[in-house]
Amino acid sequence: MKIVEPYTLPGFMELLPQKQVAFNQIKTVIESTYKKYGFLPLDTPVIEGSDILLAKAGGETEKQIYRFNKADSDLCLRFDLTVPLAKYVAKNQGVLTFPFKRYQIGKVYRGERAQRGRFREFYQCDVDVIGDETLNVMYECEIPAIINDIFSGLKLDFCICVNNRKILNGLFASLDISDKAETMRVIDKIDKIGVDGVKKELAETLNDKQIKRIIEFVSISGTNNNKIKALKKLDVDNEEFKLGIQELSKVVESSKAFGLEKNLVIELKIARGLDYYTGTVYETFIKGLESVGSVCSGGRYDNLAGYYTNKQFPGVGISIGLTRLFFVLDENNLLPKVESPIEVMVLPMDESAVNYCLFVAGQLRSQDIRTEVYLNDRKFKNKLNYANKLEAPYVLVVGEDEIKQGKVSFKDMFNHTQETLSVDEVITRLKK
Amino acid sequence: MKIVEPYTLPGFMELLPQKQVAFNQIKTVIESTYKKYGFLPLDTPVIEGSDILLAKAGGETEKQIYRFNKADSDLCLRFDLTVPLAKYVAKNQGVLTFPFKRYQIGKVYRGERAQRGRFREFYQCDVDVIGDETLNVMYECEIPAIINDIFSGLKLDFCICVNNRKILNGLFASLDISDKAETMRVIDKIDKIGVDGVKKELAETLNDKQIKRIIEFVSISGTNNNKIKALKKLDVDNEEFKLGIQELSKVVESSKAFGLEKNLVIELKIARGLDYYTGTVYETFIKGLESVGSVCSGGRYDNLAGYYTNKQFPGVGISIGLTRLFFVLDENNLLPKVESPIEVMVLPMDESAVNYCLFVAGQLRSQDIRTEVYLNDRKFKNKLNYANKLEAPYVLVVGEDEIKQGKVSFKDMFNHTQETLSVDEVITRLKK
Repeated sequence: MKIVEPYTLPGFMELLPQKQVAFNQIKTVIESTYKKYGFLPLDTPVIEGSDILLAKAGGETEKQIYRFNKADSDLCLRFDLTVPLAKYVAKNQGVLTFPFKRYQIGKVYRGERAQRGRFREFYQCDVDVIGDETLNVMYECEIPAIINDIFSGLKLDFCICVNNRKILNGLFASLDISDKAETMRVIDKIDKIGVDGVKKELAETLNDKQIKRIIEFVSISGTNNNKIKALKKLDVDNEEFKLGIQELSKVVESSKAFGLEKNLVIELKIARGLDYYTGTVYETFIKGLESVGSVCSGGRYDNLAGYYTNKQFPGVGISIGLTRLFFVLDENNLLPKVESPIEVMVLPMDESAVNYCLFVAGQLRSQDIRTEVYLNDRKFKNKLNYANKLEAPYVLVVGEDEIKQGKVSFKDMFNHTQETLSVDEVITRLKK
Repeated sequence: MKIVEPYTLPGFMELLPQKQVAFNQIKTVIESTYKKYGFLPLDTPVIEGSDILLAKAGGETEKQIYRFNKADSDLCLRFDLTVPLAKYVAKNQGVLTFPFKRYQIGKVYRGERAQRGRFREFYQCDVDVIGDETLNVMYECEIPAIINDIFSGLKLDFCICVNNRKILNGLFASLDISDKAETMRVIDKIDKIGVDGVKKELAETLNDKQIKRIIEFVSISGTNNNKIKALKKLDVDNEEFKLGIQELSKVVESSKAFGLEKNLVIELKIARGLDYYTGTVYETFIKGLESVGSVCSGGRYDNLAGYYTNKQFPGVGISIGLTRLFFVLDENNLLPKVESPIEVMVLPMDESAVNYCLFVAGQLRSQDIRTEVYLNDRKFKNKLNYANKLEAPYVLVVGEDEIKQGKVSFKDMFNHTQETLSVDEVITRLKK
């Protein structure tokens, strides 16, 4: 038979079992947190009609899309979970209950240039709260609590940065700055090129008064309360700006009621997608790994589904790029401690002990204890070696003596102890 | 803005939230059972190089494959989880621990003709045990226990049918029947066309002696033990046939040790994929829904990865087509009772109660209770209506009085009762 050399495509993550277990643990922390906040599960197709997925797209994203024909259909693989959500909400608006809180965890596809740490297939883990024409700002306040629970659950040291797009929009409007994107791009470089560098670059498009006000704005520093005070003191005569401060204050003030004592920082430079977000925006950084960028981002938007319906669906949401997050944590030895997928390995001394072992395993499994029986007929040394390789924390050994006594030899592989116990005693021990 | 009418592609399942919750519950039963038997998780890419995925394919399957080019790469969407497993095992054979027990639950793609109940994107839920050159028949014996736990867990009435391919192969070899596929196809029609019909059709390719023996074989009936006895009595002079009986006996005998008292039936007509399986084969039928075909099938094979390596990897595995299973159960009102994704809905009487509600919700969530706070500023009637629509089993109401007392009003929506409780009392109540 002709042999095809086995390979996995570049840009596609495929893990060995131990790493896959760690990956799944992180996914479980994210999913269980989303569920704890009352989000409902959603699972949309990976493939959609191109007219649906490209209703909005353009520019860089469109070039990266996996698009192809099957029979007469023009199809695309989804490149995020937001566009499918917009379609879903528009399509099912008559039967959904609003505010519609949904989470979705699934693979998305972008044909990026292949390079280390960049993935063409990757998991996004999204939550969004979608309102029917209106949505209270309190839903924006809730998001940092969700982020906090996830990254605390992953035992990471992190910082949640928030801003409000109304503040930026209002400021720019009050100064008659039309090219917001260019101005934001320059502001964002302040940590690299300093105040003087920013002034110089802004001078190419703005006048002195505009520059002075922008510099006052980006120079605001201190605690969250100091920043709010300083924003008010800027005395910008613009209603949107004022509303932005009010909303940002609310996010900061309510954080205590949400149990967030620290980790939340106002960062006035954050803008995110320029023509989509309209209120609070979020970015999350792992301390010491700020250079990899935000690992959990999102914000408030006023019109989720404008490409599919005339009805207004405002919302707020965040997304975690899980595949990249996993890659970064792995590179930096920050993966969670892996729980062994096998709690108990049962080893028959010889073939005559197999049936007894199966009976024991059945009792453990009925108590939801993850149990494997080694069933190949090998030397005992090989069986024990298998248990060691799979890092089973507990091993039960069964031979003639154990069967006679109706018991098992219980080996604690971590503490290197061995005792003779009944199955009930084993269960009690493990349930602790 | 030009509106694109929102739609989902035909053959792609996209569920409303309530149904999605039921779908996920079934998925969880399958996944947790796989884990309980010590299978390790695996997650391979949805896209593979065409040379990898088409190394084996051909015929019907190949026509259905989603195949396309991206840049210079010839790519396919996976059409099952077995080919990616074969690639994975061949690629990682040096670092995996054998027997390698893995489960994978993921979407696969087949461009079938669109019709009700047929899906182009569907979940497969697979387990396989892969041996390094050898694999004990006891692993074949373990499979029915896994199937039994899953379908018992789904509260379904079902039947696991087993056969052994060595019996069929040995019988055909002893009778010098070369066109096994055609003979099997005719045998399989016995329930429809009866013994005489089968005889007539077999006469087109076989002689009288061959037909007589085949009819003796397919006429075997009775209990599992009776069938084993009758098989032995056929006295077929073929070593493979005899080994097949031995293995089939072992599967039946060991089923008691695996806790399987019923549900397991020898069905000598089952063949499955003709050139792949070599030992025990499995099919599973839901009672009353036999006409939809097997909902969980698989078997023992001797050479998993022959297209990618010269090394022999025997294995045994099963697959559940979850999307179709869900569709069938839904059509027949056999879905599991849906647990509400939201356990507690917290409703502030007015805006002044919101912070207190957030604090209460935080305490419940810290105990892993799935809790939502309604945060829009609406009339209380609307808030209660929201809780009802989402079918939250418990609702906490907080107003001025509750805050003064440091308590909440606890409404049991199922029993229509209301009590004033402390948060600790609520937690104790819900943990029961």
